[in-house]
Amino acid sequence: MSHITGIAASNGIAIAKAYLLESPDLTFETKKIENPEEEIQRLESAIEKSKEELEKIKNHTKEKLGDEHAEIFSAHLLVLSDPELIQPMEDKIKNDSVNAEAALDETANMFITMFQNMDNEYMRERAADIQDVTKRVMAHLLEAPFPNPALINEEVIVVAKDLTPSDTAQLNKEFVKGFTTDIGGRTSHSAIMARSLEIPAIVGTKEITQSVKDGDMVIIDGLEGKVLINPSDDERKEYEQKQSQYEEQKAEWAKLKDEPSVTSDNVQVELVANIGTPDDVDGVLRNGGEGVGLYRTEFLYMGKTSLPTEEEQFEAYKAVLEGLGKEKPVVVRTLDIGGDKELDYLDLPKELNPFLGFRAIRFCLERDDIFRTQLRALLRASVYGNLKIMFPMVATVDEFRQAKELLLEEKDNLKQEGVEVSDDIEVGIMVEIPSTAVIARQFAKEVDFFSIGTNDLIQYTMAADRMNEKVSYLYQPYHPAILNLVHNVIEAAHAEGKWSGMCGEMAGDPIAIPILLGLGLDEFSMSATSILPARSQLRKLSKEQIAARKDELLSKSTTEEVVELVKEITE
Amino acid sequence: MSHITGIAASNGIAIAKAYLLESPDLTFETKKIENPEEEIQRLESAIEKSKEELEKIKNHTKEKLGDEHAEIFSAHLLVLSDPELIQPMEDKIKNDSVNAEAALDETANMFITMFQNMDNEYMRERAADIQDVTKRVMAHLLEAPFPNPALINEEVIVVAKDLTPSDTAQLNKEFVKGFTTDIGGRTSHSAIMARSLEIPAIVGTKEITQSVKDGDMVIIDGLEGKVLINPSDDERKEYEQKQSQYEEQKAEWAKLKDEPSVTSDNVQVELVANIGTPDDVDGVLRNGGEGVGLYRTEFLYMGKTSLPTEEEQFEAYKAVLEGLGKEKPVVVRTLDIGGDKELDYLDLPKELNPFLGFRAIRFCLERDDIFRTQLRALLRASVYGNLKIMFPMVATVDEFRQAKELLLEEKDNLKQEGVEVSDDIEVGIMVEIPSTAVIARQFAKEVDFFSIGTNDLIQYTMAADRMNEKVSYLYQPYHPAILNLVHNVIEAAHAEGKWSGMCGEMAGDPIAIPILLGLGLDEFSMSATSILPARSQLRKLSKEQIAARKDELLSKSTTEEVVELVKEITE
Repeated sequence: MSHITGIAASNGIAIAKAYLLESPDLTFETKKIENPEEEIQRLESAIEKSKEELEKIKNHTKEKLGDEHAEIFSAHLLVLSDPELIQPMEDKIKNDSVNAEAALDETANMFITMFQNMDNEYMRERAADIQDVTKRVMAHLLEAPFPNPALINEEVIVVAKDLTPSDTAQLNKEFVKGFTTDIGGRTSHSAIMARSLEIPAIVGTKEITQSVKDGDMVIIDGLEGKVLINPSDDERKEYEQKQSQYEEQKAEWAKLKDEPSVTSDNVQVELVANIGTPDDVDGVLRNGGEGVGLYRTEFLYMGKTSLPTEEEQFEAYKAVLEGLGKEKPVVVRTLDIGGDKELDYLDLPKELNPFLGFRAIRFCLERDDIFRTQLRALLRASVYGNLKIMFPMVATVDEFRQAKELLLEEKDNLKQEGVEVSDDIEVGIMVEIPSTAVIARQFAKEVDFFSIGTNDLIQYTMAADRMNEKVSYLYQPYHPAILNLVHNVIEAAHAEGKWSGMCGEMAGDPIAIPILLGLGLDEFSMSATSILPARSQLRKLSKEQIAARKDELLSKSTTEEVVELVKEITE
Repeated sequence: MSHITGIAASNGIAIAKAYLLESPDLTFETKKIENPEEEIQRLESAIEKSKEELEKIKNHTKEKLGDEHAEIFSAHLLVLSDPELIQPMEDKIKNDSVNAEAALDETANMFITMFQNMDNEYMRERAADIQDVTKRVMAHLLEAPFPNPALINEEVIVVAKDLTPSDTAQLNKEFVKGFTTDIGGRTSHSAIMARSLEIPAIVGTKEITQSVKDGDMVIIDGLEGKVLINPSDDERKEYEQKQSQYEEQKAEWAKLKDEPSVTSDNVQVELVANIGTPDDVDGVLRNGGEGVGLYRTEFLYMGKTSLPTEEEQFEAYKAVLEGLGKEKPVVVRTLDIGGDKELDYLDLPKELNPFLGFRAIRFCLERDDIFRTQLRALLRASVYGNLKIMFPMVATVDEFRQAKELLLEEKDNLKQEGVEVSDDIEVGIMVEIPSTAVIARQFAKEVDFFSIGTNDLIQYTMAADRMNEKVSYLYQPYHPAILNLVHNVIEAAHAEGKWSGMCGEMAGDPIAIPILLGLGLDEFSMSATSILPARSQLRKLSKEQIAARKDELLSKSTTEEVVELVKEITE
């Protein structure tokens, strides 16, 4: 047995066998062969097996996640039925008397190189498809088949170097009890997905794939960020107990589902959720969310070959708004693309410092054709619920004015077209760039609300890329500079009678919650699964008590001093 | 005749013939040859010519810039005398009956690939040397010789796509009257070098190399950012007049050389210079600088194959301190490496967002062996003048405390070794990260001074890479957020009886100077050539008059509104 620590990315405890999600070793030897017919047979059989597998995955994905997610596998199946690709492999086996592996590899590489070098996004994607499919066939030739997380049909804990969005899309909660990865942090994609799937996860372990073998018994403790490999009987008992305690606590939290979010001194705040797709609405309601504080619309644009239509977007926005009902607010963030989020079909320029680059509102103001389509879809959906719109990455008042102008233009256009549009849409901004936090006073005169995006605000304020391990120690949410900026934003909003929310990971953090309450935050937007614990925590906190020590908090010099004082105040 | 506009990077007007600094087209055809001996002769002759050329450049560089800069050319000469490289070329001509170009190219590429793939920094540099030298020999074979800026011996204006640090190192002011480039901005390396060489320059023209032919008559107007190609007689007269007017104004400014830097209402500030090497001290004194506000020590570490020794550094620091005399302050910035400044021999990790990465004090605190050597050299030099030390890229109070601790440790060590060290060294920080500007109040309790580094502060505060054309419009020095941060830093310093300077490009900017004066800045550090114009400007400004409108300035919403108000106040 051994213990490994990592970053607790999603709460809960899971105990199950390890499922090592790892690409098999696909190295092979080129061999001269005697019997080409036999070798062609081997190749055809590997292709057949791959097709069967892909059909299964495709159907499974369709069923669990819908047609759109299944499309990639249709493309892969097409590749395997293409004689223009398969015939040259068979010819090579015959003519050069080489084994199937060598023929597959050489032929596929020729096509991949050819397609990759074409100045055409579509052909480059075909290259990627061929690469994926070739690996699968090679795996079958080498009798080292690919892991298919979609096909898991027993209770497991997935262990991987990293999980891509398409990996996580395939995970079935029924069988996948949790996961743990070598890389990633609390704000990495896989961590966010884990919280949205409501399964425990430990990320950033650095070495878990080195230490766990397929089938090992594994315990993951998402409360403390620990992984136990092949635990002793005592350990297993201890964690089963911890697991049932956690289940009990969850049951306690569940009782707060329809309770208001109030402090011990009767101050009411709003606890809302961050979501990515209409499918997430269920989780929000199940976890007692009082609305949506951040609807990330990027998913509509990702994993596709072209831009989503106005109609597609309208349907998604309408579904979310209807899901939340007439009263509960839904804050939609307009497209935040660029930076670490790329869209192949837009062919954005490669940048030296993408986090300081052409993204979000900067992109949308230049590509107002794309932006206007989104705004129209949002405006059309506005009559189905309580919609609020916010613009991401706003750095100057000018940018906000321009974006709002476009929104008003499209509203006029729609009205002239006879389309019904709500007249009560609040329009606000994400505060995630230091300049905007610094002159929040000026912005507050023009916006309807602020939503502080701490993930980016922290990295810009500290000038440290949170994904860069060498400087991630500077990603300090409770740093006095961050607290002073947050406080400045809240005060500026209140001075103009506006409200201030926060939709970064910080809003759901148990250490940050008392601080933010004391600083006067009105709306806390977090992973749906954090809402009930946060409500439970709030009921034990006195806002007045913390607010009385506000100046002291804001004048601390270091993160450590802040944390110490918060503990002192709340204990 | 035609006019092209660009970014005015260095003041003044120059009129001279264009010298197109461009790599010649080195494409060649592989040919079968009949007479291998003749072909070997051609190769040997091209090598001989290259050697002669390199000898000349080497001697010239040695004379003008010193041994160190000439070293690279010794390395190139060594390559051309290496039989292990030359023999295979001659063999190839004989055995394959190919022309010298093909033999040179193929042999060189073989060595380059081999050396590049070795996991050894030294060998990779040899690969780069071979690449450089091969190009030079190929140019002679093709009778399209390389331009050698160091050998220019008539008055010219250099026209180039871009100028690398090693290009600018070769420019001789006596003949090079100015330069203009396709790319670059006011803060790019070539722009800074132009101001330090005191020659006019227009950068970022996008197309100048397309529009100018070698030998064309060119006028560059570094006051307005214009380039005139083959001007008419009238235009030439007009610019000769403008040139002499500018010379007259310079003469006027020169009279202020030993005058104090005072405003019309008798407030004294300090006008000091940014420098990069001991050679720059002359320019500081010639331009009436009252000290050095920023001595960038990176040049000591750059263009070399290993770290500078303590002794080398000591000599450089001593030279600068002695150059400025006992009274005039010299603010030395400790090593700011990483980000866009790489050191080959350190093998720093490639980063996705280098500007938000492992650089400056972050690097120095981890590699404290390198840092301590620099601190020791500085401490030893401290007795030769008025030294102040500042740390770059400080984001947290912790980092400052750690850096200062190392400084004090090395001071103790030196004293124990019996080395004399000044006891009056002020220790401060660059304020170039938003967090530090936000909690300047906390920092002011611990540091002796602040120096605001606007180049970085602006790009972090606006979350916009100033080198990225798609977002460089967000690099707004007069943006209200920047002014509010600058004001916060100055107020924090003054509350603790400390002083605040600025060493970014903004400190020498005629629009920024009145604003900074009004906000209370104590020390303005700029290119040496900006000092006299700034002094002249200051004498016409009333600090009280501007300070009276401070709150109005700080509550503006946009850069345009700020600029308008400044014009109104100062007109």
